[in-house]
Amino acid sequence: MSDLLRPESTTDLVGSAAALWEVVREAPPLTHCITNAVVTGFTANVLLAAGAAPAMVDIVGEAELFAGVASGLLINLGTPTPEQRAAILEAVAGATASGTPWVLDPVAIGTLPIRTALAHDLANQRPTAIRGNASEILALAGVSAGGRGVDATDSTDAAADAAAALATRTGAVVAVSGPVDLLTDGERILRLANGHELLTRVTGGGCALGAVMAALLGAARVTGHDALTAVAAASLGYTIAAEHAATTARGPGSFAVSLLDALAALRPEDLVAEARVESGAR
Amino acid sequence: MSDLLRPESTTDLVGSAAALWEVVREAPPLTHCITNAVVTGFTANVLLAAGAAPAMVDIVGEAELFAGVASGLLINLGTPTPEQRAAILEAVAGATASGTPWVLDPVAIGTLPIRTALAHDLANQRPTAIRGNASEILALAGVSAGGRGVDATDSTDAAADAAAALATRTGAVVAVSGPVDLLTDGERILRLANGHELLTRVTGGGCALGAVMAALLGAARVTGHDALTAVAAASLGYTIAAEHAATTARGPGSFAVSLLDALAALRPEDLVAEARVESGAR
Amino acid sequence: MSDLLRPESTTDLVGSAAALWEVVREAPPLTHCITNAVVTGFTANVLLAAGAAPAMVDIVGEAELFAGVASGLLINLGTPTPEQRAAILEAVAGATASGTPWVLDPVAIGTLPIRTALAHDLANQRPTAIRGNASEILALAGVSAGGRGVDATDSTDAAADAAAALATRTGAVVAVSGPVDLLTDGERILRLANGHELLTRVTGGGCALGAVMAALLGAARVTGHDALTAVAAASLGYTIAAEHAATTARGPGSFAVSLLDALAALRPEDLVAEARVESGAR
Repeated sequence: MSDLLRPESTTDLVGSAAALWEVVREAPPLTHCITNAVVTGFTANVLLAAGAAPAMVDIVGEAELFAGVASGLLINLGTPTPEQRAAILEAVAGATASGTPWVLDPVAIGTLPIRTALAHDLANQRPTAIRGNASEILALAGVSAGGRGVDATDSTDAAADAAAALATRTGAVVAVSGPVDLLTDGERILRLANGHELLTRVTGGGCALGAVMAALLGAARVTGHDALTAVAAASLGYTIAAEHAATTARGPGSFAVSLLDALAALRPEDLVAEARVESGAR
Repeated sequence: MSDLLRPESTTDLVGSAAALWEVVREAPPLTHCITNAVVTGFTANVLLAAGAAPAMVDIVGEAELFAGVASGLLINLGTPTPEQRAAILEAVAGATASGTPWVLDPVAIGTLPIRTALAHDLANQRPTAIRGNASEILALAGVSAGGRGVDATDSTDAAADAAAALATRTGAVVAVSGPVDLLTDGERILRLANGHELLTRVTGGGCALGAVMAALLGAARVTGHDALTAVAAASLGYTIAAEHAATTARGPGSFAVSLLDALAALRPEDLVAEARVESGAR
Repeated sequence: MSDLLRPESTTDLVGSAAALWEVVREAPPLTHCITNAVVTGFTANVLLAAGAAPAMVDIVGEAELFAGVASGLLINLGTPTPEQRAAILEAVAGATASGTPWVLDPVAIGTLPIRTALAHDLANQRPTAIRGNASEILALAGVSAGGRGVDATDSTDAAADAAAALATRTGAVVAVSGPVDLLTDGERILRLANGHELLTRVTGGGCALGAVMAALLGAARVTGHDALTAVAAASLGYTIAAEHAATTARGPGSFAVSLLDALAALRPEDLVAEARVESGAR
């Protein structure tokens, strides 16, 4: 990883994040999603609004090939049917063979046995990034059994040590979503304070962020930025758009609509002006 | 059922319904949905807006366990793939073993053979509630073959006797959706006159109500209210929110968005002020 | 086909299109959709807003029977699971046996092997219409391998010859979606210039049009109009509604909502006043 661009400061990071969003708008990254049945439509609309090109290819016999040509890949375990589970293994093989960056979103792991076993298996296959709420990251790190004990409203700091250990073990950037998002590659820790509570009142509010991460990781292949920068860029753009959307929303329904409008209207310079980032070493 | 709270009057019923909505907001019921592919996203958004915690767990190997820990369960037969059919049987077993209340929504039964046979099987497994339009309830009661002969625009009174007989036979509260919703436990009959025609122009307008019933039945486990009260509370809150949404809607698209906003803004006292309920014995 | 109504002029065509929309509003055509998981909800909402009656019946054991009683059928290959692939073959058999018109939408064919083979197989089973972007039509016609080389933003004229040849070979009306939609039955060519760029920023913007074509083909069974007229009517109504929606949209999110409102508010006379059609022989 030594030849990748690593920001030296939070100002540098935010500038790189803005540059990555410009790339997304100029050359829409083909973003391969295998995601859950609840959020497919919203996820595709979020990617289109962000400027990316979504493609949901989740059947055996097509997923490996497509992951090989895509710019980035999302694996979301929300409703893992047997067909999807087999397609996921194919897609990860295709991504690995071609160097396609991929994001693992271990939805609701902990108690539910099938997705939990699959998530642990996938975490060992070197995902580029792992995104979840504190409960899911703790469960994947082996610290807790997951479940409702720690959910998205808890502080992400409770999962900071587990996230860093998980990053070190898997080689992935780990993103813990919450009121303050915590991102780490095992060495560096970023805390991103943008966002809005209404994101938790829209189904797919977190799942779609995983897809945006896959898109920005695709853009980072063009620019040479490292994965932590790409994941931070995705989080910042998405959560700043959420703040814009909240200014006109009258509730969760109009917020989801406005979020798509705000993502489409997001300018790279908005990140520079509005990002709230705190950086530190572990 | 003698130890459950049974309202003595419609005023009492509406007060109990309002109390149940307060419980939903204070302790979001974990609502397990196995529902059709068309309405998963909208259903989850309706539950989130109402204050509940949705979870779509519809695979074999996870559905039974999850139904055992959930507050309420929805079984909707709109697109019953083989995997979902097996998961449904698992989930109902889990719900039965744990006493989790569950709602059966026999979508489009009558002519279509696979879902019709499954619906009849499930109706014999003591669902807590059954929700459908007049056509579906008549078909499940064995009175007609279903289909388009009687659809959601017909009077629900045409299905009143069949609904009462079905309730008596299965032990379920039966809810017939239409311009006036008819609810019965076989002895009592409630007619709820709130709602709006635009609900029939949004896909999932009825399906999502089934999920709200599962959430309110979960809340009723906390308060000790009976199933008829919980099902009535779900219908009243949902249809009053629909009336609120219709005041600003410019068509079915903006109505669906406003419905989510209105559900999130619904106050328990709105039920007391606006419910239109007529009660009677069979 | 000699006894079907064939417009003699573009004025005649637009008048017939308006008449078909009146039929949709007076006798909602039961529109059977087997479509991809990303767009099921949006597609159903588009059909409801247009005045049709959608039904997603995509399981083995029910699809054949339902295609036989439906007014029109859509086969969309966006996420073709094994169960859907088997159900598609059933549905096409049912449609063929009963004379139900059906639309083939060969989403993303070209490189992806499973859907590509299925699309070629289905094209040989006499679909009533085939809808795709230029890339997909070129791939189905055997002219190119599809993929991203020619996508929806390219001129549809690049696919005009391939579309006409495909129409002649399969007997289908072929509709190439793009900034200008190109429709052909192999002899006549129509160019429809209505529409808006925001349609490409909403997932299902094209897929839902295929469903509207199935609905209008169903209406044409009542009026006796030919398939080219029905497909043109669908395109005109949908793209004129898109123009109406764009006048109030603030981005892709609010556009999708407004499109549903505009479809519901669309009057047959709007087609007469606003259609931009150019007609010619091949």
